[in-house]
Amino acid sequence: MSTNLIRYDDGWGVVRGDDVLPLPGEYATTAEVLGEGVKAARELLADPDAPSVPLVDVTPLNPLPGARVYCQGANYRSHMVESGMDPDRAFNMLFTKSTASLSGAHDDIVTPPHVRLLDYEVELGLVIGAPVTGPVTVTGADLPDYVGAFVVANDVSARDVQLPQGQWYKGKSYRTFCPVGPYLCVPERAEVARWPELRLALTVNGERRQGSLAGDMVFEPAATLTEFSQLETFAVGDVILTGTPGGVAMQPPGAVTQKIAGLLPEARRWELFVRTQARSRAYLKPGDRVAASIRTDDGALDLGVQKNTVV
Amino acid sequence: MSTNLIRYDDGWGVVRGDDVLPLPGEYATTAEVLGEGVKAARELLADPDAPSVPLVDVTPLNPLPGARVYCQGANYRSHMVESGMDPDRAFNMLFTKSTASLSGAHDDIVTPPHVRLLDYEVELGLVIGAPVTGPVTVTGADLPDYVGAFVVANDVSARDVQLPQGQWYKGKSYRTFCPVGPYLCVPERAEVARWPELRLALTVNGERRQGSLAGDMVFEPAATLTEFSQLETFAVGDVILTGTPGGVAMQPPGAVTQKIAGLLPEARRWELFVRTQARSRAYLKPGDRVAASIRTDDGALDLGVQKNTVV
Repeated sequence: MSTNLIRYDDGWGVVRGDDVLPLPGEYATTAEVLGEGVKAARELLADPDAPSVPLVDVTPLNPLPGARVYCQGANYRSHMVESGMDPDRAFNMLFTKSTASLSGAHDDIVTPPHVRLLDYEVELGLVIGAPVTGPVTVTGADLPDYVGAFVVANDVSARDVQLPQGQWYKGKSYRTFCPVGPYLCVPERAEVARWPELRLALTVNGERRQGSLAGDMVFEPAATLTEFSQLETFAVGDVILTGTPGGVAMQPPGAVTQKIAGLLPEARRWELFVRTQARSRAYLKPGDRVAASIRTDDGALDLGVQKNTVV
Repeated sequence: MSTNLIRYDDGWGVVRGDDVLPLPGEYATTAEVLGEGVKAARELLADPDAPSVPLVDVTPLNPLPGARVYCQGANYRSHMVESGMDPDRAFNMLFTKSTASLSGAHDDIVTPPHVRLLDYEVELGLVIGAPVTGPVTVTGADLPDYVGAFVVANDVSARDVQLPQGQWYKGKSYRTFCPVGPYLCVPERAEVARWPELRLALTVNGERRQGSLAGDMVFEPAATLTEFSQLETFAVGDVILTGTPGGVAMQPPGAVTQKIAGLLPEARRWELFVRTQARSRAYLKPGDRVAASIRTDDGALDLGVQKNTVV
């Protein structure tokens, strides 16, 4: 059975039903939490008399402090189609978000003053479980060696910065633009293979916007880790966000309008894009409540629910 | 006077003329090197009897092990024009390269088997000298608080990955795609302000390709650090590559050709781009020798010369 760890003001705890059992000791790094922390958590779970605090009294902190955040762009056909991208493109789009964007699962999402098109993207986060220091070929069979935990992540995006500026790092990296958690969901080895059954869901003010199975993703975790290892050195606790399914606020104009807009100078074209998109009521505005969750339908893997208010 | 530190097999040393004076002690982080290391180096430089080894016998290692690599895209008008970008665009394009791409100043540049359009970009690297943990407004006056050192960097780029895939991280992040050094050039406080006088130069097989003053850059270090601090937390030793001047191998087709190509489906357009560019003799090929240097004309700041062979 998976183990749900939670980081909060007093340190780390493990979730049992509606309670949190505080882990004794301190864990300086995610590597220590995924090692000694998980062992301690399993012992506590087996102890019916372990002290506990109510889960509702605990405010989850970012479970991946200091992590590097790697991303796959447009990795679900449903999102590629709605974004006007070629759903049959043959490459895995990779980029990064800042470490400083990481925030807690109940933290506010802070809109920078200049941002007009604030969007959400629920994503399955794969937390690296073993150092990767050179090229490796990862298969489904050894995926549990590399995936130490699953997390819910929201790849919050300022579309009016991300798209006109071409490179996505800035528009996706403002502080609070990456709520993560609430749980560091540590699967049993055999449970890692169940990632395709994880169901992603996101609502805004209770209205359903996104819903999809992780199994619908185009470039799967083993292939993505294999390609990433050509480029990057991973530490335990780094995270890969595996892309978002359809249903984001941004719904670009049709192909014909895009062809016509393509004849405008670039700066003018983006002005038009921002002005047109700003009419949409789907983008996030102050006061909006975003809820994001990921779990298997049978609840065996349940990464918890994020609840963020936009300010 | 600036102090040129060098990392090599035996640890760290300081350059004096044609010699390297080995620093006693070990330095686990760039922060330690920029603190205690610089103090020790200055004492050694004042000691005429300090033991030394010939500089030519020393192979420089990457002076920024583990650094995070941040980049400015197209930050010189000469490169924006040659790349077909709008030189009057109003934003500072920010993105990242991988830590794993960092290599030594004399290391080989390894071409991945699938890459056909290998390009060079000499860039001035600003090594972060103080932690940045939240938004700050950096001015020219306090720039020396944030810039701990200057380095030569080559932002090696696989154009046939970088451009068709849209996000630049992958095509610029393969291992050995970021030679840095040879020196960690630590300026005196007052010398930081001389960054605009630094002259960047790059040759391929002795033929001049790039030459420009850093002062020609569009978004200057203080403004760039100010904007970056909204998005990112910096540690001492992280590096910002400030963009490359004109003269890279890639010379895209003229505006009319681009407009016509714009009517093709995207995948087809990039096939055409790669095929056309592959005819150019300017791209790097195995055996090519790349030399990159950055210094002020009076030599007061001299970041050293990179010499890399393409394999």
